[in-house]
Amino acid sequence: MTAEIISVGTELLMGDVINTNSAFIACELKGIGVNVYRISVVGDNSARLTDALKTAASRADTIILTGGLGPTQDDLTKETVAEYLNLEMIFDKSSWDNIVETLNKRGRPVTENNKKQAFFPKGSAILKNNCGTAAGCAVTANGVTYIMLPGPPYEMEAMFKNEVIPILTQKSDIRFYSKTLRICGVGESAVEDMLNDIIASQTNPTIAPYAKTYEVHLRVTASAASEKTARALAAPVVDKIYAILGDNIYGEDDTTIEDAAITLLRETGYTIATAESCTGGLLAARLVNVPGASGVFMEGVVTYSNEAKIKRLGVSPATLEQYGAVSEQTAKEMAVGIAKGSDTNIGVAITGIAGPGGETNGKNVGLVYIAIFLNGQVTVNEYHFTGDRTKIRDGSAQTALDMLRRVLWRLKRE
Amino acid sequence: MTAEIISVGTELLMGDVINTNSAFIACELKGIGVNVYRISVVGDNSARLTDALKTAASRADTIILTGGLGPTQDDLTKETVAEYLNLEMIFDKSSWDNIVETLNKRGRPVTENNKKQAFFPKGSAILKNNCGTAAGCAVTANGVTYIMLPGPPYEMEAMFKNEVIPILTQKSDIRFYSKTLRICGVGESAVEDMLNDIIASQTNPTIAPYAKTYEVHLRVTASAASEKTARALAAPVVDKIYAILGDNIYGEDDTTIEDAAITLLRETGYTIATAESCTGGLLAARLVNVPGASGVFMEGVVTYSNEAKIKRLGVSPATLEQYGAVSEQTAKEMAVGIAKGSDTNIGVAITGIAGPGGETNGKNVGLVYIAIFLNGQVTVNEYHFTGDRTKIRDGSAQTALDMLRRVLWRLKRE
Repeated sequence: MTAEIISVGTELLMGDVINTNSAFIACELKGIGVNVYRISVVGDNSARLTDALKTAASRADTIILTGGLGPTQDDLTKETVAEYLNLEMIFDKSSWDNIVETLNKRGRPVTENNKKQAFFPKGSAILKNNCGTAAGCAVTANGVTYIMLPGPPYEMEAMFKNEVIPILTQKSDIRFYSKTLRICGVGESAVEDMLNDIIASQTNPTIAPYAKTYEVHLRVTASAASEKTARALAAPVVDKIYAILGDNIYGEDDTTIEDAAITLLRETGYTIATAESCTGGLLAARLVNVPGASGVFMEGVVTYSNEAKIKRLGVSPATLEQYGAVSEQTAKEMAVGIAKGSDTNIGVAITGIAGPGGETNGKNVGLVYIAIFLNGQVTVNEYHFTGDRTKIRDGSAQTALDMLRRVLWRLKRE
Repeated sequence: MTAEIISVGTELLMGDVINTNSAFIACELKGIGVNVYRISVVGDNSARLTDALKTAASRADTIILTGGLGPTQDDLTKETVAEYLNLEMIFDKSSWDNIVETLNKRGRPVTENNKKQAFFPKGSAILKNNCGTAAGCAVTANGVTYIMLPGPPYEMEAMFKNEVIPILTQKSDIRFYSKTLRICGVGESAVEDMLNDIIASQTNPTIAPYAKTYEVHLRVTASAASEKTARALAAPVVDKIYAILGDNIYGEDDTTIEDAAITLLRETGYTIATAESCTGGLLAARLVNVPGASGVFMEGVVTYSNEAKIKRLGVSPATLEQYGAVSEQTAKEMAVGIAKGSDTNIGVAITGIAGPGGETNGKNVGLVYIAIFLNGQVTVNEYHFTGDRTKIRDGSAQTALDMLRRVLWRLKRE
């Protein structure tokens, strides 16, 4: 199977939006063994899209389009594909019901132009959109399957996983099995160095490392005539990787590092509270990403000012005076203070300089202290992050989660 | 002038790397009035690249290529362009000197394959690389200019600004001016409805709406012989849009909604504290996005549990018992409690059901109350968000920021 991806949207040609959709789709397609030889971007222009469809159809048997399914005049993907394939546009009642329901729920008016989103090229399979009003569709003509997906990544990604993957795997008789191992605390090149021999010697399964923000994901993909056989091929290689990387692997597949941390909190029966300065709530927000986190995450405070650190956390004014707000000592007192004040077993504190301003003598932008109070003991680590304000803050929250899950992991093993 | 962008690299087709280069280049080109009608990605494959060059040259007068200028065998952009244009590859002594110097500085060995990076299609202007060994080049043949740039964004971006922009502005005599108006609280189709007549009747400037997450951006772009004239063409249309959309517009160009809120807090001299339940710190983190927010943002608490709501915010147990944690009454008491406890003028509180669990009798996932305490008065709004946990939480934080900046805006005008 050979696929091409066409992203439709003038905003992409203007550079207003970075095309993350193509990377997502390419990555998913690789996981099920579909080759992508070409990715294109065209604007909201029917003639140019038709031109792109023509060229793509001459080379590929599967064309995946994203964008242009909205309610406005310049959304013309479905209409252009229908015209190119000489198909009528057909009204789909159940899509229309979903649109009305979604708009009602949001308290938005149902306008005449919303109706556009309920029309599809004749013969299409409708791809449900659980996150918005733009349903997708898939239609096959002259041996080429055209799959039309919405542009917003959130809607597109869910639709791709739930609706498109089943269609594509049905078309092929090779079955894939893949497992992603998620690593934090080791860089991509270090991971590659550690696994050099296995990566080089493996052809089935293949092992592919992906650098993510402060993480590395390692995807092991095996192919065979059945999923069972593919799974059996992958298993010993996964075991080998675990033996080498040990607890640098924090989880598998869709498990995030906050999932891993919350699960360990539940398993150990510990409760947690957070105190944040430069991250301003990012760590708490990551913990609350996990549904039901309230069972173990008692509370978080964002003490951005010194006053708040003193009043809410009991940090001593003398400590702030002598060592500064960004110091090992302050981090320690914040961690102890939040745990005591919230009556939790664990207190995690972050204080640092996210920039662009805030440098003081000897303390540079990127300097961050992370402290964990646990069982009467405090561990503090000093970090030097690089990049802009956002990157430093994201790195700090991520690293705090990594420290936390490592501490809990050791505790659980003991 | 019409340009196409071709990104070369198998890692892009595999989804391992997100194509940020194309967005950067497109954005830069827009700034100097060059239209981009197509962006493509091809792998490290000479035949497929030749194919892409042929198609692009039939449509555009400027082709910008990124990637494939490295020292290894699969780096073949310059070689493929030379072959396609039937040009010899010529050795450039000064580029070679730069390569040797750069490698020496980094303590890397100079190997035979590095020499590849000092060869360019005959007739090329060499584009200096101040950040690496891969020089770029520009060559014109049959009225089409081929600009070849390195793949690493850091090297490419510097080269584009320093070397490519001067070449391209020389070629064009049209100047552009554009302004983006940022809107929150009204959906994309409603914005279009309100502006239908202006959008339809305008050709210079053009008006383009972009749906963002819980926002709409409206870009007004004018072109003329000078930037001053372009600016003068845009101004009355921008005024008209302001007259229609009013304070639904929260800011211009790069101003985020948290920037707008923090600016208004500074202007009004008010201080703020936040109390969050389902958003778990997202609102605080958004405020702390703004460098120097500490002047007005005193503190935030994440009171995910009922205990924390009682202890930290003074929410009455009777209120929680009678109305539940997700209620107008609880939101109100949270907002009052955080403002009083933090001694700020303003308290913002969010409580809601982000799902997937947590539905109780009559209260569905997506129900969120946002309360703002200000000058002794509390305003509470009830919202019904759709989507998954992340979307509901992002929508809640965004909407709280929108409520906040609207309240402050009214205050400022009074």
